Amino acid sequence: MGTLPRIAVTSGEPAGIGPELLAALGQMNLPAQLVLLGDQDVLQARAACVGSAGHWPAYTPDTVAPVSVLHIPAAAPVTAGKLDTRNAQHVLDLLDRAVDGCLAGEFAAIVTAPLHKGVINEGQTSQSGQFFYGHTEYLAERTHTPRVVMMLTCEQMRVALATTHLPLKDVPAAITAQSLTETLRILHADLKHKFGIATPRILVAGLNPHAGESGHLGHEEIDIITPTLDALRAEGMMLIGPLPADTLFNPTQLQRGDAVLAMYHDQGLPVLKFASFGSGINVTLGLPIIRTSVDHGTALDLAGTGKADVGSLVAATQLAIELAHAKSRAVA
Amino acid sequence: MGTLPRIAVTSGEPAGIGPELLAALGQMNLPAQLVLLGDQDVLQARAACVGSAGHWPAYTPDTVAPVSVLHIPAAAPVTAGKLDTRNAQHVLDLLDRAVDGCLAGEFAAIVTAPLHKGVINEGQTSQSGQFFYGHTEYLAERTHTPRVVMMLTCEQMRVALATTHLPLKDVPAAITAQSLTETLRILHADLKHKFGIATPRILVAGLNPHAGESGHLGHEEIDIITPTLDALRAEGMMLIGPLPADTLFNPTQLQRGDAVLAMYHDQGLPVLKFASFGSGINVTLGLPIIRTSVDHGTALDLAGTGKADVGSLVAATQLAIELAHAKSRAVA
Repeated sequence: MGTLPRIAVTSGEPAGIGPELLAALGQMNLPAQLVLLGDQDVLQARAACVGSAGHWPAYTPDTVAPVSVLHIPAAAPVTAGKLDTRNAQHVLDLLDRAVDGCLAGEFAAIVTAPLHKGVINEGQTSQSGQFFYGHTEYLAERTHTPRVVMMLTCEQMRVALATTHLPLKDVPAAITAQSLTETLRILHADLKHKFGIATPRILVAGLNPHAGESGHLGHEEIDIITPTLDALRAEGMMLIGPLPADTLFNPTQLQRGDAVLAMYHDQGLPVLKFASFGSGINVTLGLPIIRTSVDHGTALDLAGTGKADVGSLVAATQLAIELAHAKSRAVA
Repeated sequence: MGTLPRIAVTSGEPAGIGPELLAALGQMNLPAQLVLLGDQDVLQARAACVGSAGHWPAYTPDTVAPVSVLHIPAAAPVTAGKLDTRNAQHVLDLLDRAVDGCLAGEFAAIVTAPLHKGVINEGQTSQSGQFFYGHTEYLAERTHTPRVVMMLTCEQMRVALATTHLPLKDVPAAITAQSLTETLRILHADLKHKFGIATPRILVAGLNPHAGESGHLGHEEIDIITPTLDALRAEGMMLIGPLPADTLFNPTQLQRGDAVLAMYHDQGLPVLKFASFGSGINVTLGLPIIRTSVDHGTALDLAGTGKADVGSLVAATQLAIELAHAKSRAVA
């Protein structure tokens, strides 16, 4: 590696907007060596729709080019906007290569463009039988990490989730003293060590409306959340809450903390995605590698038009670069 | 009543910011006859902290003054910032008087400043034994309305709730074909008749993250929500969804609808309160009377300082005035 961090960027679903977002990113002149992982013919074809010549050299471990392509061929011909289960494994192959490279020190970080869970599940069922919940869960499994924390960030706020892709009815039971403790430890440690916040202040949402209203609207705050926060406060963590989610996100309140911990997906993400206006970043905490991602989906209807907004991918790549530098400083 | 609608504005919790917000509102010169319901000594005392002389005439049914006071005495001395259970009944008395006046045609609408549920419950338990969930539920009961819909509005969006003040674990079971149908009928009718939207388009959120992801993250969308929406579409309602809540609120998506129906409190309100920045309005749909409210609490720490933002109360009063005019046009 040269002085600039080498960042692996996966194209995700080849029929989605991922390949053209990678092509657009490749024109950005970011302070990194970007390695675009995808099918080179697809990348080349989609480069045209964002006004890029797409003339990137093939990646080799000695590459110092600002942008290069690590070609992993799709299994079946790719048509923009049309999913094909035969390419499900291709999407996972991109990820696997990026993870292996990260674990080996070849790449400093992974940035992922969106994949399509539905087609991966259809294409995969016969092989593994395991439901594919998403990038976050897959990367945890692949790196043998027992617990990771999904956090989204934008200019106005950082929002981490205590639970992610669960039916709503299963959320209350998933909030336990143990799960909450582990999640807060990961969030606290990564804010400190990866984001360089010396004393992270975390705003913790309640599970129930109005944070349970003294037990009238649910008991989990009294039985589980408050005692867990108290135990972690005794260790020195700065935790504010449990707070009612509907007032927690007012801009004055947000200034009191460095991150929010929401108890579940739809408590935390609607407000973040509203605020970020297409430039939110998804970052996975607790992994042994650095991984950031766009916060949007494959947008099949936009694929091949060149109209998709590259803002989230650019922001995700910039954060990956920052985190890579912070990590190399910590190691040095 | 003169040509200007007569609007009852209740002070809510006397130890909170309500009385001074009413005093500030009284200085606004709105196109209405505002009747301030509260303890006149408290209103007078708090007027000073917002720079108002507080010289309002006493309300009589013949009043045509732009601002008058309907005095209902507090039971115990009021200190800003200090709750007193002896004044719990006073808060309810204000509401009861306003409701009675609305039902009798004396007032065109009610606007409510915040009350404090905790102190009402402590002060009331011995008398009625019934838990007080909030203004919305109380007004429904008091007007014998079997179902009401809580909707919050701001410049960027309207958000109605399919369920309101329930523990999160009880939410999934509360989303039934019947409850959803009744809620959507009320929302649709009120958007049409009260808000003057000829063909309301409603964006409906899913219950589960990603609206259940084709059943992988919950079945309520498939089993209940989608069939209910289909049945109502067959009657001519324009319903979009069920949509994933985290993408539903992006500004482009919001433009596709006139209102959002969120399935529960913390799915819909954090984003609205973030967007409204202190000037959100709470409006109760389905009541036989017009009722709007601030979207914030009693802010005991600010009471008596004159620093509380009157924006939400002004917006709520302006909406009440508009709705009163729309109703009188419909009746005429």
